[in-house]
Amino acid sequence: MPAPITRFPGLSSTRSRAVVHDDLVFAVAVTPHNEPTVYAQTKSALARIDESLSLTGTDKSRILTAIVYIADMAQKPEMNRAWDEWVDMKNPPMRACLGVDLEHPHLVEIVVTAAK
Amino acid sequence: MPAPITRFPGLSSTRSRAVVHDDLVFAVAVTPHNEPTVYAQTKSALARIDESLSLTGTDKSRILTAIVYIADMAQKPEMNRAWDEWVDMKNPPMRACLGVDLEHPHLVEIVVTAAK
Amino acid sequence: MPAPITRFPGLSSTRSRAVVHDDLVFAVAVTPHNEPTVYAQTKSALARIDESLSLTGTDKSRILTAIVYIADMAQKPEMNRAWDEWVDMKNPPMRACLGVDLEHPHLVEIVVTAAK
Repeated sequence: MPAPITRFPGLSSTRSRAVVHDDLVFAVAVTPHNEPTVYAQTKSALARIDESLSLTGTDKSRILTAIVYIADMAQKPEMNRAWDEWVDMKNPPMRACLGVDLEHPHLVEIVVTAAK
Repeated sequence: MPAPITRFPGLSSTRSRAVVHDDLVFAVAVTPHNEPTVYAQTKSALARIDESLSLTGTDKSRILTAIVYIADMAQKPEMNRAWDEWVDMKNPPMRACLGVDLEHPHLVEIVVTAAK
Repeated sequence: MPAPITRFPGLSSTRSRAVVHDDLVFAVAVTPHNEPTVYAQTKSALARIDESLSLTGTDKSRILTAIVYIADMAQKPEMNRAWDEWVDMKNPPMRACLGVDLEHPHLVEIVVTAAK
């Protein structure tokens, strides 16, 4: 029998903020508060990732990968500042940071894969 | 013994349109028809994803994640229109939509992870 | 009991170059040499992926997916040249290639998922 999939509703009914299958968790976050700075938005998006992982029964120490999309590569140091304060230094994920267009007013969007 | 990997040939011999390992399926699609609009290209790319999932024995109700890359963020509503018509509303994937450069004439490229 | 996660240190202590969980390996690479051309950087990044896969006990014949980020879509043929020389033609990954902003002096960044 195929393994069950659990989905956690996102801001829209046409996508999920987190999905669990076997012992893998997939989550995406932007800030829900639309702060004006990359630092503040990264902090909020990471807090939302924490919340999603908690909903699915895991936490940041079990993140496998993080892809961090930022709207302005010049602001990467500000994203890094929030990341470095937040990350579990004993369990750092594989991470890539890429400059892309995001929908206004988002400056940062984060996608993670974690283990349960 | 390591689990077998099944690969489904893509447009080029140096990459696959879909790869299956254990109960995970990874698939990528652009439109094969090069329609001029984001709406039409999204519809075609999603149809190609459906086809790949069918080849691998699963379907859109089992998609875990979708990353949708679009060439022009201003056209996101048109991509969303095709997405919303297509998505299994009872089983929405985690999704991120990012504005990136795609190779002409592609306006949309979609990468999904699904469960068998 | 949750499956163990093995992490391989990256250039910074706040992220890993590769992470292993169950029989999946996640790895990211940029060139460590900052060559001036896309072809040379792609070759170096792919060599670094080979090295990471070797550290984790697998190799390029078991890559499931590759996302190739390039800073200039006009240079995609040069990336492809390095890819085509390197790829295991009998086992081509699912691949997407996207134009994004990367941090100077990086012209190419590659994220792969492989099976053990």
